[in-house]
Amino acid sequence: MINIKLTIQYEGTNYCGWQKQKNGNSIQKEIERAIKEVTGENVNLIGSGRTDKGVHAIGQVANFLTNTSIPPDRIKFALNNILPEDIRIIESEEVNINFHSRYDAIGKRYKYVIYSSQIGNPLYRNFAYHVPFAFDIEEMKKAMKFFIGTHDFSAFMASNSGAKSTIRTIDKFFLEKKDDLMVFTIEGNGFLYNMVRIIIGTLVDVGRKRFKSDEIPHIIKSKNRRFAGHTAPPEGLYLVKVFY
Amino acid sequence: MINIKLTIQYEGTNYCGWQKQKNGNSIQKEIERAIKEVTGENVNLIGSGRTDKGVHAIGQVANFLTNTSIPPDRIKFALNNILPEDIRIIESEEVNINFHSRYDAIGKRYKYVIYSSQIGNPLYRNFAYHVPFAFDIEEMKKAMKFFIGTHDFSAFMASNSGAKSTIRTIDKFFLEKKDDLMVFTIEGNGFLYNMVRIIIGTLVDVGRKRFKSDEIPHIIKSKNRRFAGHTAPPEGLYLVKVFY
Repeated sequence: MINIKLTIQYEGTNYCGWQKQKNGNSIQKEIERAIKEVTGENVNLIGSGRTDKGVHAIGQVANFLTNTSIPPDRIKFALNNILPEDIRIIESEEVNINFHSRYDAIGKRYKYVIYSSQIGNPLYRNFAYHVPFAFDIEEMKKAMKFFIGTHDFSAFMASNSGAKSTIRTIDKFFLEKKDDLMVFTIEGNGFLYNMVRIIIGTLVDVGRKRFKSDEIPHIIKSKNRRFAGHTAPPEGLYLVKVFY
Repeated sequence: MINIKLTIQYEGTNYCGWQKQKNGNSIQKEIERAIKEVTGENVNLIGSGRTDKGVHAIGQVANFLTNTSIPPDRIKFALNNILPEDIRIIESEEVNINFHSRYDAIGKRYKYVIYSSQIGNPLYRNFAYHVPFAFDIEEMKKAMKFFIGTHDFSAFMASNSGAKSTIRTIDKFFLEKKDDLMVFTIEGNGFLYNMVRIIIGTLVDVGRKRFKSDEIPHIIKSKNRRFAGHTAPPEGLYLVKVFY
């Protein structure tokens, strides 16, 4: 028995998300089905965490136990032969038998892309959040600084998430302008359910002057979801990297 | 009666191309249908030229004659309300009654995107030509120079195109590397059917050392499609701008 770690890219548009669900096709289900076809085994594919419908991945990580005789680094090619084109295994390698994609993750990096223009761009419609308003970017940058560090992020968590602890540390949070796109990078030791999307939605509200940047510390302290901004849509979100 | 010029963006993935066809949904048909809904008129929408199935546009141009009382600059909003999200009108303006999108075009700019990596990227699968081989980029750059200028491009035209003249002038042709993407920009006074895609396919063949760069002048002189390289697929091609 060996433990195989996969690094996975996908476009989330046509899936119900990472996790298997009764109705709807999930990334996890597609990959488990491909593994079954390649190895003959019914495996339990453990992901580093869920991604929602429409959310993309550039570096999702998952692992599974197998008795296959296929060399670990060839498994990616075997799976890619079977998988639909919107899911690609970019790395497959043998790891320690105790490695667990979710429990062993010590951090994650996400990217969030906003397309800021009066009229939406059809080429970005599944890949960026179209915001047809002008932003106060300096105010948004001020607001971003308040998220860095260790905080109780309850106010930035979808209700009924049932997380054990709501304290998380954000190490990096920066914004790059690329032509008509705003690309946010956020990195931390973990993220609550919808946390990145609620942070981005709140920043958009700051950019539109619904909040002032210096209200962010008070929103964090409130630990109350109602005081934060809207939840930015999934299509702008990318899971870039999982750290171990 | 006024003449309205539209500037249009679209993702070509889900259409049979620009031009109306008996079977299959075209960009032209979608926009004519939206104009009918907005103005009540059956118009003939004249495009600057066709784009094939899967080819995208960032700045396609089309015009139509109308008696509508909607202010010209508001027409884009009215049409966008009706059009599917993969087609957007980014500009609508009144132009001289004699303006003709196709006959008056004096040049076009295209972009072609190649994703060069062993494994395809699911996020680019409809937006770039995935080439899973290493390239000799210097050799490709040498080859590119031979296309600039005025030539008979018969060797780089799909057979049975029936163009009156096969002489075209390419003014600009350059390559930018952006992370794992190669972005070609090509600009000229006009392009034969499939000309950009055959030029790019030939360059890929040069990059893979199937041709040497200094064979390009001979291929051009041959005026024979068989001596040029393969036709690069549509998903990497973007009509960027039409010049008048």
